[in-house]
Amino acid sequence: MVQPKKIAIQGVAGAFHEVAAQKYFGSDIAAVECDTFRELTRKLAAGEVDFAVMAIENTIAGTLLPNYSLIREFDLKVVGEVYLHIEMQLMALPGVPLAQVAYIHSHPIAIAQCREFLDTLPPAVTVIEKNDTAESAQLIVKNNLRNTAAIAGKLAAEMYGLHVIAKNIHTCKQNFTRFLALSGKPRQSDQNNKASICLEVTHCSGSLAKALGIWAKHGVNLTKIQSVPIIGKPYQYSFYIDLEWDDSAAYRRATDEVASYATSQYLLGEYRRDRWEEI
Amino acid sequence: MVQPKKIAIQGVAGAFHEVAAQKYFGSDIAAVECDTFRELTRKLAAGEVDFAVMAIENTIAGTLLPNYSLIREFDLKVVGEVYLHIEMQLMALPGVPLAQVAYIHSHPIAIAQCREFLDTLPPAVTVIEKNDTAESAQLIVKNNLRNTAAIAGKLAAEMYGLHVIAKNIHTCKQNFTRFLALSGKPRQSDQNNKASICLEVTHCSGSLAKALGIWAKHGVNLTKIQSVPIIGKPYQYSFYIDLEWDDSAAYRRATDEVASYATSQYLLGEYRRDRWEEI
Repeated sequence: MVQPKKIAIQGVAGAFHEVAAQKYFGSDIAAVECDTFRELTRKLAAGEVDFAVMAIENTIAGTLLPNYSLIREFDLKVVGEVYLHIEMQLMALPGVPLAQVAYIHSHPIAIAQCREFLDTLPPAVTVIEKNDTAESAQLIVKNNLRNTAAIAGKLAAEMYGLHVIAKNIHTCKQNFTRFLALSGKPRQSDQNNKASICLEVTHCSGSLAKALGIWAKHGVNLTKIQSVPIIGKPYQYSFYIDLEWDDSAAYRRATDEVASYATSQYLLGEYRRDRWEEI
Repeated sequence: MVQPKKIAIQGVAGAFHEVAAQKYFGSDIAAVECDTFRELTRKLAAGEVDFAVMAIENTIAGTLLPNYSLIREFDLKVVGEVYLHIEMQLMALPGVPLAQVAYIHSHPIAIAQCREFLDTLPPAVTVIEKNDTAESAQLIVKNNLRNTAAIAGKLAAEMYGLHVIAKNIHTCKQNFTRFLALSGKPRQSDQNNKASICLEVTHCSGSLAKALGIWAKHGVNLTKIQSVPIIGKPYQYSFYIDLEWDDSAAYRRATDEVASYATSQYLLGEYRRDRWEEI
């Protein structure tokens, strides 16, 4: 019998990381819970799991910059990406109505994303910050909390047998999180059409302008750029860049040409691009 | 008698935001505490304070992207910047030794930044996440907690009369946070030598390459660039960019020239640059 793939996720079962893992790898996976992103990358580097799924950016909150450092520190490769539309549900034990809820538990970012809904509740309702959305749901079941609700994703409600008592309570409907699929080995495929790289150049504007000009000339599109100061090298920067192409030969030629202007060009990984659809 | 300037800060008195406000405006200020960044920008826009000081990025954690949106939403202007070297102290009530500490309170990011130190403590010590570093310090005094310590900055210890029982416990010594000074009005001065802008271009690599090439040609340096997807316009991006110059006439010429390649060029503010020094 084939064993399901072991996928490291951040948070407990039912968290958005597990939803992303299922969207990318299919539902027949064994999610391995990790408390922290460092734990997740460590487990993958040690061969304790087959792959890992890690959030890298969110349309509202921005990039999780330390996660790029973890990929490099453990010498991992990006082998895929998945965009997830983030929808928040308020959930409680079966039979518990909204009027009975005295406490709401969730992760601080999820709480912030549901602020408008929370402001409509009576002031007596106390909002309590927890480490994780799905863990907040789990805790209600574990401790049979009949006066408490959790803000989490739909999967957490299904997994822990909670009922959704207020649906889609997130304020901004266009909220996407991008997750990376990580492996210990690069994805070698002629189907790859996206890359994540880290570029270092000297004399910022000039060399970076040249690199961007080369990609443009070869029809390679830039879908992300973010500068990060290099510690120990004042006024030098790394640029985390995502590139997309239709013609992989053109991408190779551009990469070779850029190399002559860059101090270094570190490949985080090549993979198939995912699409996010506006709601 | 001249009233001290009212400066909105995020967090309670003694927080790193107050340290940044004092570094920029001098020690004779009246800090106005705000629970959230939204509250801080709202107070400034409503004229309840003279200025605000707001964290925008950290060398380890990256950019606080939602803060850019708040500056635009409330039509505020960046009038200055200040870099702060972030150093964490473990503090407790006078006479409480480290061996007596059973609980440590702090903000999750501060806790993460002191992980190596915390790992040296006995496993019985419980770390508890709080909203704010300085508030954790304040709470110890308010409730006379003789078995609890807080991780916070030196100013919080001085302000609440706590003793530092373990000094500089942060793991990464090169940890800087950049704060912006905000006003309702732009800073008009020929001493300005830095600008923060938000640029929108179509056909990403090509137009962005041209814009960067123009700045380079005029001797204007790029010190930050970060792309942000534009909600409602798939595959179009905003770029948050910081520029520095020595010759303001050259900067003006470059700005005019870039305008012809940009869909829009929004000025967040012009100001005097601050320097961060490597430790």
